[in-house]
Parts: sequence; structure tokens; C-alpha cells
Amino acid sequence: MSTTDKLPTRSENFSEWYNQIVLKAELADYAPVRGCMVVRPYGWALWENIQQALDRRFKETGHVNAAFPLLIPMSFMEKEKAHVEGFSPELAVVTIGGGEKLEEPLIVRPTSETIIGYMYSKWIKSYRDLPVLINQWGNVVRWELRTRLFLRTLEFYWQEGHTAHATAQEAEEETIRMVNVYADMAINEAAIPVVPGIKSEKEKFAGAVRSTTIEAMMGDTRALQAGTSHFLGQNFAKAFDIQFLDWNNQMQYAWTTSWGLSTRFIGAIIMTHGDDQGLIMPPRLAPIQAVIVPIYKSETEMSGVMETVERVRKELSAFRIKVDDRSEVTPGFKFNDWEMRGVPLRIEIGPKDVEKGMVALARRDIPGKAGKSFVPQTNLAAQVGEILQKIHNSMYERALAFRQANTHDPRNYAELVEALQNGWAYSWWCESAECEAKVKEETKATTRCMPIDQPAGAGKCIVCGEPAQRKVYFARAY
Amino acid sequence: MSTTDKLPTRSENFSEWYNQIVLKAELADYAPVRGCMVVRPYGWALWENIQQALDRRFKETGHVNAAFPLLIPMSFMEKEKAHVEGFSPELAVVTIGGGEKLEEPLIVRPTSETIIGYMYSKWIKSYRDLPVLINQWGNVVRWELRTRLFLRTLEFYWQEGHTAHATAQEAEEETIRMVNVYADMAINEAAIPVVPGIKSEKEKFAGAVRSTTIEAMMGDTRALQAGTSHFLGQNFAKAFDIQFLDWNNQMQYAWTTSWGLSTRFIGAIIMTHGDDQGLIMPPRLAPIQAVIVPIYKSETEMSGVMETVERVRKELSAFRIKVDDRSEVTPGFKFNDWEMRGVPLRIEIGPKDVEKGMVALARRDIPGKAGKSFVPQTNLAAQVGEILQKIHNSMYERALAFRQANTHDPRNYAELVEALQNGWAYSWWCESAECEAKVKEETKATTRCMPIDQPAGAGKCIVCGEPAQRKVYFARAY
Repeated sequence: MSTTDKLPTRSENFSEWYNQIVLKAELADYAPVRGCMVVRPYGWALWENIQQALDRRFKETGHVNAAFPLLIPMSFMEKEKAHVEGFSPELAVVTIGGGEKLEEPLIVRPTSETIIGYMYSKWIKSYRDLPVLINQWGNVVRWELRTRLFLRTLEFYWQEGHTAHATAQEAEEETIRMVNVYADMAINEAAIPVVPGIKSEKEKFAGAVRSTTIEAMMGDTRALQAGTSHFLGQNFAKAFDIQFLDWNNQMQYAWTTSWGLSTRFIGAIIMTHGDDQGLIMPPRLAPIQAVIVPIYKSETEMSGVMETVERVRKELSAFRIKVDDRSEVTPGFKFNDWEMRGVPLRIEIGPKDVEKGMVALARRDIPGKAGKSFVPQTNLAAQVGEILQKIHNSMYERALAFRQANTHDPRNYAELVEALQNGWAYSWWCESAECEAKVKEETKATTRCMPIDQPAGAGKCIVCGEPAQRKVYFARAY
Repeated sequence: MSTTDKLPTRSENFSEWYNQIVLKAELADYAPVRGCMVVRPYGWALWENIQQALDRRFKETGHVNAAFPLLIPMSFMEKEKAHVEGFSPELAVVTIGGGEKLEEPLIVRPTSETIIGYMYSKWIKSYRDLPVLINQWGNVVRWELRTRLFLRTLEFYWQEGHTAHATAQEAEEETIRMVNVYADMAINEAAIPVVPGIKSEKEKFAGAVRSTTIEAMMGDTRALQAGTSHFLGQNFAKAFDIQFLDWNNQMQYAWTTSWGLSTRFIGAIIMTHGDDQGLIMPPRLAPIQAVIVPIYKSETEMSGVMETVERVRKELSAFRIKVDDRSEVTPGFKFNDWEMRGVPLRIEIGPKDVEKGMVALARRDIPGKAGKSFVPQTNLAAQVGEILQKIHNSMYERALAFRQANTHDPRNYAELVEALQNGWAYSWWCESAECEAKVKEETKATTRCMPIDQPAGAGKCIVCGEPAQRKVYFARAY
């Protein structure tokens, strides 16, 4: 497939539009093992920027990084009942090591609560050892049947935070703190509006007391869970015997949390912001924030242009800049290519610009003339910084407006069913599994979350009419 | 084990000294799976600093990062004959996925030449696509029988660079460039003197045409291979069909390289610099560059001291600083604790220092009074910067002097055997496998490398007396 092949439009075939963008923009490729992916340099650079944005926030909130083993004894999974039920269908199992059949099979971690719980039981003895606030960057494997690049792959990359606390309250505060860190990153780095909220009992993490999530609306109006934070109560502390001596010299079980955000978030970026021309990268995470395209028709023109290009590149050294100096393709080809790859800002420099001391700027988020401006070369860094800020804001506003336009407030069950054909519904819900199951069966929509910020008062369940304390988002989801 | 237990001395039991330092300094711990480790936050912070020091150098030399799958089809390993012979005894094999027996077993990558070679054959079509300069940070698994924390573990963390080039010469230059990058990092960041050189045929990487290495002398005079860079010729290009159209429109096989440095390097840092009090961290990589210990005997003293401590901490914000404000342990305990953990510089602040506007500085690398100085609080950042620089230099010089003192120039085979009981030997060698095997059998020493920088002329093989073109280091090794 060449980069000049046309993408399907989003309205024609959103799913195929997505796949082709991932491949054509060289974010990822299919691996030779079913359901696995190769994250290519452009995609990995995006992930590194997401990592930095999160890691900074983790460290500011007192967390440190560590690394726990990939391979976990099978018996560990079985110590927490709900956990093993949730994960056992998805395990990859190592049965041979160094040419010998292993006495106990090892699983490739699908998540690390168990092995980290085991280590915490060795390390935590006293209230003085608490809280333990550790995060790990790594890879995990879940044997998924239906896979999509970034959205659901057998192996994926993520961070998983695992904390232990002396009291339930501290652990609950940590759970909320971290879901808010995810929301902050999504909004302020990725320009993705998200709803932080609480998962239903059915949708919570296997082994959690309560799960929280950030939910985002994709360009086809489906929801995507973009990060989760779990209050695990004492479930894992009891399964792995994480006990400590408290102030009063009494043995207590610790209270734990876990929280994770994965390369799935790249899928959220693509499907929130992309358009029919391809990707649109949020400026603060974009691997390339601006591409400089020199324009010339002769060698004489070239030398003047390239001299200015080089000077501009140096002036913009605070930004992630790419100079596209390929000679084998035309400027028009380059424009399309970088648009498809979603570079937020294009800087064109031709002989007339050199003469006038100007450059042409083209915003990726506003197609055509409306997104173009001509600015003096002097003080360019400040201008580029401002425009990138504007692009971030306008991407966020556009995504928020889209979500609002596609979030419905149905008056009754019939309207709910109708609304869920094409958008989210925000409704009172009695929190019963029966009503949740009925909606899912009849619309394929699931409960996404009960937002942390709730309206005042109470209402009646949109499904059964019984009293409801909280509103919930229903939506079809990735 | 408490941190107040005494370490064995290095001369008593170097091996046990090493193990205990790793555990007591909380760099790593044993995992519940045989031979696996948990890298604890202090150890991981050191690794993150090594990663940054390398990653910066990789990017400066034109490389980009990506991520290839953990799981590799078993059949891939079999495509390169020497490669499969070298690695097949060490493989961890996944035979079950999602509850089903897999049709083709998957191996957990021990290294990624095969799967990356497969992807390169899809991506590389023309000379315009070359060179491909990709690095990956990740984890690999090798089923080792005898394991040591950091030095040899079933799972370890590393980077592996994989590049493809249009010509043999470019690939050979890349191989040397990267071994020099490792040497530069070792010397200028870790204060470890290393010898960059070429491995013998016997010691080279399974599948390589030629392997290069950086070799370092540990505190017990044994050698440690601290990073390797391989010229793979067209071996993997032929096994995985990495072909491209050259300038003349002819199909050619690419020339590839691979190079890696792992968490083993942490072992090198410990064993190069540590002393009987514990670790000594090289200042540029140290997770904590200076620890501030407040000293007071009353609450009145405390408030003045802590005010100064806080001011000093802010002034030193360019450094990685830890304030040890624990109230449950004495300053003396803290001194020992941070010495054991190898923090390069200790800053003591007591009531008299507050009064005089001074602080006491204690260098970790020079024990006792000789390493202490009293300096004014004004302009402290510049002074701390200078001292850290001095510590780096003196650590490097000391390690270099140690290596020189323990590197022998035997005049004959008997002297070689003698020398290898306690140090390295640097000798002419005919490069025959027979002479190499004889030395190994009789002394347990292997050839470590033929340095890239060789003396002029030629000599006679120290083993057989035949003509020799190059000198080699013989040593017992980790």
C-alpha cells in the first residue's frame, strides 16, 4: 500500500478508515503472530510522549517506578477468586523452559496485582512502610479473540500503578486521585474530553471493590474506556497476606489500589481527532509538532530557501520540528503526506517568503485557506507556540462539542433505545444488573460510568422506573 | 535482614558482599519464580538514568525507538542456523493461549533479530528505505541455569538496536559506532573504564559475523562484558529475505547489525565502585546525587535547621536531592544508611552551620575526614556541581588505576597461567580456537576481546608461540 492511496472516508467506513490510518501513517503494523502488533517509530514516539506526560504526573503525586517479573506462577492467579475467573480465559501459558517441561506452568502477566501483592507482603511490615506508591511501565499479554491495532491486541504496552495504604480512606482517595490524573492528561495533553466516573458492578475490574474510568467519545460516537483506576479493598491484601503492624501494634491488612493506561490511548487519539485526510495529532503529544516544507523550482531558489529553512529550524529548536527536504517528491505530495500523518502545523518557505522575510503557516485542524496565515520570520518561536496552543484548544472544543451534540437525554425507554443507535445517553439508573442487561441485550450498549460529578437530587430509572440515585452514561463501546 | 546488619567485606567474600548490597540497598529482590528478579524503585531509578544517558546518544546518532512483539513463532528461530543453536537451550516456550493448545508454539523473545528481520523484509524495498536505524527498550527471557541478581537473570531489561544498511561498510561502521557509544556512556556517565574490542570467533554472538564488546574489570579483578555490538553481515537478511533494489535497480540483500546493553550494567556499577561500606553511585547516574541530613537536639534547634535545609534543598533543585527528615533514627544511622546506598555526597546541616552560614559536605568516595569539607551556603549549587564532577573523575581514575595494576603482561605461558589467578593478561594471541580452549581449560579464563586500538607490529602467541597479529585480553569473567 502506498501513502498516495486514498483513505476511505470516516462516514463510509469508520472501522476501515481507522485501520488504514494506523498502517499508512506508520503508527503500527501487524506482527506475524495473530493479534500482535509492531509499534513503529512514529507510533512509539507518540507513546513516549504520552509516557512522559503521565510519568511526570505520577512523580508529582509521589509515585516511583519499579519492575516486576513478566512470568507469574499459575497458582498466584488462583488466590483471588474473582480475579482468576476474569482472567483465566485470556492467559498465555509457558509450559517449557530451557528444554524441560516446567513443574508449575508460568503465565505471561495479563496484569500484575498478584505478583506485586506477593512482593508487598514481603516488604510491608509496619505502618511506617506505608503508603507504597509504585508504578511499572511494561508489556502484558491477554489472549483476545477479536483484535484491532492499538485498541485490543494480544500484547500491549501500558503502565500499571499498584499502591498499598494503611486505611480504606487513603486507598479510596488514591483511586480517585489517579483517575483524575488520567483525566488531566487526556484533557490537557491529548485534547480529549473525558468523563471520569465509576463503573457498574458488572463492568468493574476482576478483583476490584470499585473501578473508576475515563470514558471518551470516538468519532463514530462509540465510547472508549481510556484509562482505569481501581479500589481493591483488602481483596488482594487478604489473598497475598499483605499485613502490617499499625500505630496500636495491631496486625492489619493493607488496602490496595491499581490503575492503568495503555497503548489503547493511541487509538483514542486517532478516533477522537482524525478526519478524512488522516490523523490529527494533539500538539503537546505530537512526535512532530511542525514540519517545514521548502518550496523551490531551481537550484538558485533552493540555496536561498534552504538557508532560511535552516535558520527557522534553529529558531524553533524548542519544538519538535521536521524538515522535509526530500527531493524525489513534490511539495504537494509532502503536504498530503504530512496531513495524513497529522502534523499539527506546516511551515512553508518559498523564494517569495525568503524575499519578504515571511513564512506561510498551515493549521492541520482547519483545512484550506481558513487555516493558513502568513507571518514574519522574526519572533517566529513565540508565534508557533501560540498557534500550537490555539490548535490544542480548538481540537478540545471541537471534540467536546461533538460529544455534547451526540449525548442524549431520553425521556423514556423507547427514546433510550433510539438514542443509543447513534450516540450516548445520560440517564438515571437504578443500578440493578437486570436493567443493565436488558439495555445491553436490546441495544448492544453498556453502562460506561456513573460520573463522579453528579447532578443534585435523584430520579427514576430510565429502564424500570424505580428510584435512582445516580445518572449513568449508556453507550456502545470499543 | 535489617539495614544495620554488617556487610561481609569484599576481600572476605566478594560474591556474598555483592548479593547483600543488592538486597540491602534495595536495588532488587528475588522474585517467586526461580532466577527472576524484582527491580526495586532505587534500582529502577538507576536504570532509568542509564536509559536516558543511552537514549540521548542513540537519538544523536540518528536512531529512533519502536516496539516489536514479545512472542515469536518457534519456526523463526530455526531460520538462522547458528542463532538457533546458540539460543535453543535457553528458550521459554508458550504452548497454551486462551485455554487452547497452540498449533505453533511461541517463544518468549531471548533477543529479537528474527522477528525484526521478518518485519524489515516487509518494510525495506529500495535503497531509499535504508538505513533503518531502530532501537527497542524492553524485556527478554533466557532460561539460564545459574543466576545472579542483575548479572544473569531469566528475565532482564535491556535495549536492542537493530539496523539495516545498503553496504557492508556502512554496517561495519555502525557496529563500531555503537560499541563506542557504549564506551562513551560507561566512561562519562558511569565512571567505568572499559576496553572496546572484538570478540573471538568462539565468544561471538550466535548468528553474527563479528561481535564487539566493552569489557570492564570488577573489584575482584574478574571481567564483565558490559555491552555488545554485532556485525551480522547478510546472515539474517538471507534468513528473512531482507532485499532491496539498489541504485542500479539490482536486488541486494541488506547488511544488518544489532547491539545491546542490559540491566547487567547495574552489576558492573556495583562491582566496579563499591567498597566495604556498600555502594558508591557514579554521580551522573545516581538516583540521589546528594542527601541532606539535618542535625538537631531540640525542637528549638530543629526549626532553624529545617528552615535552612529547605532553603538549601531549593537552591540545589538542579540536582537529584533527598532530604532525610526521619525522626525515628539518629543522624549516625542515616550516615551509615546513605553510605551503604552509595549516595555520592552528604550535606550535613546543624545549628552551628545555620549560625555560621555554612554546611558540611562529605564525599562518599573518600571515607572519613579527608572527604569532608565545610563550605558557605552562598553559591552552594556551583560548589556541589564541582564536587560531583570531582567525585566522578576520582572514581574513574581509581577504577582505571585498579585495572592497570591488575592487568599483567606475562612473558610466557607459565606466567600467563599465574597472572590469570588474579587479574587480566594482555598478550599476543594467534587467534586459534585451540590456544583459546587450552587457556580456558587450564585457567578458567576466556578471551575477553582484542582491543580496537592495537599496538603497532606483531608478536608471538603467548600459548603456542606462532605468529600473532593482535593482542587479546584473557580473564576470568562473569
